[in-house]
Amino acid sequence: MQLINSLEWRYSTKKFSNKKISEELVDQIIKATNLSASSAGLQPFRLISIENEELKKKLGEGSFNSQIAESSHLLVFAAFDEITLNHIEEYIQHIADVRGIETENLLEFKSALVDNILPRGSHENHVWASKQAYLALGTALIAAAELKIDTTPMEGFDADKFDNLLGLKERGLKTVVILALGYRDKEKDVFAGFKKVRLEKDRFVTYIR
Amino acid sequence: MQLINSLEWRYSTKKFSNKKISEELVDQIIKATNLSASSAGLQPFRLISIENEELKKKLGEGSFNSQIAESSHLLVFAAFDEITLNHIEEYIQHIADVRGIETENLLEFKSALVDNILPRGSHENHVWASKQAYLALGTALIAAAELKIDTTPMEGFDADKFDNLLGLKERGLKTVVILALGYRDKEKDVFAGFKKVRLEKDRFVTYIR
Repeated sequence: MQLINSLEWRYSTKKFSNKKISEELVDQIIKATNLSASSAGLQPFRLISIENEELKKKLGEGSFNSQIAESSHLLVFAAFDEITLNHIEEYIQHIADVRGIETENLLEFKSALVDNILPRGSHENHVWASKQAYLALGTALIAAAELKIDTTPMEGFDADKFDNLLGLKERGLKTVVILALGYRDKEKDVFAGFKKVRLEKDRFVTYIR
Repeated sequence: MQLINSLEWRYSTKKFSNKKISEELVDQIIKATNLSASSAGLQPFRLISIENEELKKKLGEGSFNSQIAESSHLLVFAAFDEITLNHIEEYIQHIADVRGIETENLLEFKSALVDNILPRGSHENHVWASKQAYLALGTALIAAAELKIDTTPMEGFDADKFDNLLGLKERGLKTVVILALGYRDKEKDVFAGFKKVRLEKDRFVTYIR
């Protein structure tokens, strides 16, 4: 399938060219990311799509990842710091709106969410929300690769700095992972030609038949 | 792009038919999952692919998720409980083997891994490893959808029971998320016809231009 080719094609880009991605293509990546599955469908994270050169430069200052500043677009995945009753109620209302039903029909589902999620500590819920963001990052990487757009997923940035510069604290969000989008600079990026390293099948998977 | 259609097509299946997935298709899903990106490429998790009916039944006992037993194949994503120097050394050796270079050429990369990963506590590293597994889950969901195979990603299972029955503790692994694969039973699964609920674009993403 085409997906395997796309996954083989992509790599973590070290050096981007100056070429900008069209807004339409960035929006396709965002649309796919928004369609990702998440636990109970709650989507406990948000995206920030940064094209602004000055802001990207500021975010990249002091980082060993030059891709932050040099990307065409930087996608920031930010997960909720805590999950509140309000998040659940908004979600239930949204389901009712989309499906044209009454929230009364969703009482059982709502109770299950309230009983499962709210008793957990806010740190546990933030970690859980972060995992959903990583799942969506997996989708974003594939969406980009299918569009022949290069990517660099990154950890190890100064999350506090991102949260401050992007005004995320006020929104109850925390940056958990970031994704640089752009087009590879084939001549300057030696990594573009390296052979992909993945586990041999037998080490990766165990079959129980 | 086709990916958007596949993401629109998929849903969290509540009721599978008896139809089995061919081994070849399961292997395509596993191959795509193995090609997923992971932080520094370390792939700190493993898959267990379970087709055995008796084992699936045991794993599903007492769970509200009938999909565990009723799936054609159950994929278990298990992340390393801790990350050790041995993991890093094996990985460095593997890169050298695949790319036909000497490990001496990878000393700087190895030091970066050792300095960044090993000082973190084992809980932090397990959470980090789990996030990489979730990223790969995102890939698995797409691979299945592209093959018109239905899926149910699940949390909220008895992880200790899984670890014991699958002998994961001995391998330094812990179950973090599971994925039922199969074919939807369109007639018995009312969810198959429900409208997909996702955030409106303006609530999901913020643009900074």
